Amino acid sequence: MEDRPQGQAAEDGAARRIPKAVIKRLSLYSRVLQNLEMKNITKVSSKELSEHLGQNPAQVRKDLAYFGQFGTPGVGYYVAELRAQIKRILRTDREVRAAVVGVGNLGQALLAYTGFAREGFRIPIAFDTDPLKVGRTIGSAQVLPVEELEERIRQYGIEIIILAVPSEPAQAIADRVIRCGITAILNFVPTRLVVPPGVKVHYVDLTIELESLAYYLK
Amino acid sequence: MEDRPQGQAAEDGAARRIPKAVIKRLSLYSRVLQNLEMKNITKVSSKELSEHLGQNPAQVRKDLAYFGQFGTPGVGYYVAELRAQIKRILRTDREVRAAVVGVGNLGQALLAYTGFAREGFRIPIAFDTDPLKVGRTIGSAQVLPVEELEERIRQYGIEIIILAVPSEPAQAIADRVIRCGITAILNFVPTRLVVPPGVKVHYVDLTIELESLAYYLK
Repeated sequence: MEDRPQGQAAEDGAARRIPKAVIKRLSLYSRVLQNLEMKNITKVSSKELSEHLGQNPAQVRKDLAYFGQFGTPGVGYYVAELRAQIKRILRTDREVRAAVVGVGNLGQALLAYTGFAREGFRIPIAFDTDPLKVGRTIGSAQVLPVEELEERIRQYGIEIIILAVPSEPAQAIADRVIRCGITAILNFVPTRLVVPPGVKVHYVDLTIELESLAYYLK
Repeated sequence: MEDRPQGQAAEDGAARRIPKAVIKRLSLYSRVLQNLEMKNITKVSSKELSEHLGQNPAQVRKDLAYFGQFGTPGVGYYVAELRAQIKRILRTDREVRAAVVGVGNLGQALLAYTGFAREGFRIPIAFDTDPLKVGRTIGSAQVLPVEELEERIRQYGIEIIILAVPSEPAQAIADRVIRCGITAILNFVPTRLVVPPGVKVHYVDLTIELESLAYYLK
């Protein structure tokens, strides 16, 4: 863990009660602010920010108010400062290391995806059972045999597991990584994982996204 | 549109007011029921169903109650029948055709992903600007030049666009597909799209999933 600015402890304590939807929106704000930075825009009002987000300004102000007073009345927010504050709240103001388990089509796409690195994530290793994949480098990740899961997770200081294996071995893999201290799993497998309290699983099910969209077709 | 069973019109009318979260859970129920079918399990209680889902039984019963009376007291639900009903409600009891725009790493992974076909989706075409990609077949899709977007969407009866292009051209592509009648977009681009009323956009932002997970790390 890196050094934190003064007052961070109190912020963290308050942040524990923040709803999941607000956390996700903060990440979205960070993305929008990053785009503004790339366009050399240094200041933004909550109204402009909300327009970029497709949300109402009151929601934006309410979300940011969870973390104390940002922004200056009549001026708005300083883009770089607000983004830095959000990243500190999300604890991505440091390098977070993740590993991908399962290097099929989806796993390979995730490894090749450059968006994670842009937000401070590093994926130095991945795991697969296929001897033809082991030893390859995809994106910035070295593909390792799944037998070395526990050993390598510790060695590389991995904090998040991105699960992209088939349904059948998903729970067993989850059990193994949790036993060696992992508390955060991003699960692309269409299987509900049973995990102990204190372990957080986020589910991304691409078929559900497509299917729930089909419902709205005329 | 295929023939619908009697009473479907009324069901559709009622379904308009169903919250988005319920629609997503229905798709999840469908997935769980599919897994049960593959294990030759023919009946399931709402308690068992809720355990597979990691949700409480009352929530499951409440969700299903939106659509009238399913299941038999003391018996539970017939797996195949309940799945068929849910797919009818979600309108995926027919082949829904989608096209992928942008055949980079993510686009290629989406085309190679077999989970969509299993739920009745077909992706016969994809679009890219890269002459090296045009003409290839990935998964079941033929990669076509993006110049032919409008013409081919009509020709193939495409109803859903899966957007996996870079941020910069995303809005222009969205505008083009909407002009030729598309009302449903699954957007993997980290850009908020501006769309007219009646057009539904679902956002999948992989970085947001990872970043919001990082927040919960100890």
